[in-house]
Amino acid sequence: MTEAPIGVFDSGVGGLTVLRALVTELPQERFIYLGDTARLPYGTKSRESVSRYAAQAAEALADYRLKCLVVACNTASASSLPTMRERLPGVPIVGVIEPGAQAACEASLSGHIAVIGTEGTVRGRAYEEAILRRRSDARISALATQLFVALAEEGVCSGPIALAVARHYLQALCTPERDGPDTLVLGCTHFPMLAKAIRAAVGEKMRIVDSAATTASAVRQCLHSAGLLRRCGSHAVRFLATDGAERFARVGSRFLERTIAPRDVELIDL
Amino acid sequence: MTEAPIGVFDSGVGGLTVLRALVTELPQERFIYLGDTARLPYGTKSRESVSRYAAQAAEALADYRLKCLVVACNTASASSLPTMRERLPGVPIVGVIEPGAQAACEASLSGHIAVIGTEGTVRGRAYEEAILRRRSDARISALATQLFVALAEEGVCSGPIALAVARHYLQALCTPERDGPDTLVLGCTHFPMLAKAIRAAVGEKMRIVDSAATTASAVRQCLHSAGLLRRCGSHAVRFLATDGAERFARVGSRFLERTIAPRDVELIDL
Repeated sequence: MTEAPIGVFDSGVGGLTVLRALVTELPQERFIYLGDTARLPYGTKSRESVSRYAAQAAEALADYRLKCLVVACNTASASSLPTMRERLPGVPIVGVIEPGAQAACEASLSGHIAVIGTEGTVRGRAYEEAILRRRSDARISALATQLFVALAEEGVCSGPIALAVARHYLQALCTPERDGPDTLVLGCTHFPMLAKAIRAAVGEKMRIVDSAATTASAVRQCLHSAGLLRRCGSHAVRFLATDGAERFARVGSRFLERTIAPRDVELIDL
Repeated sequence: MTEAPIGVFDSGVGGLTVLRALVTELPQERFIYLGDTARLPYGTKSRESVSRYAAQAAEALADYRLKCLVVACNTASASSLPTMRERLPGVPIVGVIEPGAQAACEASLSGHIAVIGTEGTVRGRAYEEAILRRRSDARISALATQLFVALAEEGVCSGPIALAVARHYLQALCTPERDGPDTLVLGCTHFPMLAKAIRAAVGEKMRIVDSAATTASAVRQCLHSAGLLRRCGSHAVRFLATDGAERFARVGSRFLERTIAPRDVELIDL
């Protein structure tokens, strides 16, 4: 099983920021990345639909004999891990919410933590629950910042528009009060693309938690404890998508910070 | 058949701007609006996926014995009318591209016409073809303005962000040169929501064509010539969606400029 690939699942290309962190953390592993581009975005869809899509993805991924599956999509992590586990018995599944919540609890001094995400992630309150489970005294301010997704996909990640949108959402949240949040969780894989604009809007003092790196370290730990780390060889990535190889390659290259060619994207049906 | 409803199909809530124009033009008709909210947006998906989704929608709508179907979605109008016609034999189908192209050709003096739309609409080149069929001397500048969709859905339709995004896309397109376009087609049902910001970015002289009104008048003509106009009674609308009644009602109310209650949205499977 050491040679088996690690699966990375997302609704689209956003999870490539998590894949990037995984490749950095685990440079000798093989990865299979599946983006459900035919049905993205998950972030504005109902919990029931997202769970159905995630279950179908898990069934498709069962064919690839994974040694671990990373659910890089916050919306699916918030709602669909149990249903995915049912369909992949014996495969450890790591979502992005728990590692993100853990990092936020470690980062925050005051215990007041802000979480930004898609509508679905915020509505599902999974970050709140995961944070409160670790720190029952925590105060959480959650906000859906849906436009960040479109900005990241469109490549408008810095400059006056990105900054204006970041201020539009975050200035009220982060007004310097005595009891304002001291930590901000980027609860969507698209948001690290806008890190500079977000930083400019919230000021230098705010601790910003991006769950990609903490998720990668959770995956390393999971594989290590199971004795499944690959000890030699170089990394390889196989890209699967459910629609639009050209767009996946074009937008995905920016997210992964590495060129993806359209011919390297295999289309599959879920 | 006079009493039969008019179907209006869109990928989500954008087509409600077309429904609004239809209700104004045809205040005595009954409408069934179907938004494929489980799989929106169509604008960034491949032609094949959009055609498959549109065909499934046509099959579902066959049960409602429509006297006419309006395909309010530009992306589906651009790619999927033939496949929808196969599945609804005998039902006249009116898309938004042809009426929009007609209105643009009538509005433009210089023959240089700009078209903005989603990635899918622009890639499909349907407006170009429809305009050139009517005016072979026309010059067309087409541009995907994907962020407009997210702004409209998020309700950020005026103010500095909307204006900055409108300028970001349109200023280069509309630099006052001697041969710049004199007419701009809003080739996406979301864009009328941003009319003021778009107007501010392109200046007072540009003629702006919104295909909703011209589509509504094409539908009237189609029903009139078939003797199918309803002569008395008041209008009624039934809302069908494939996901997320709450979001459909919340965002859709803004697009329709009339309150839709979540309980008035029936969920169906395609």
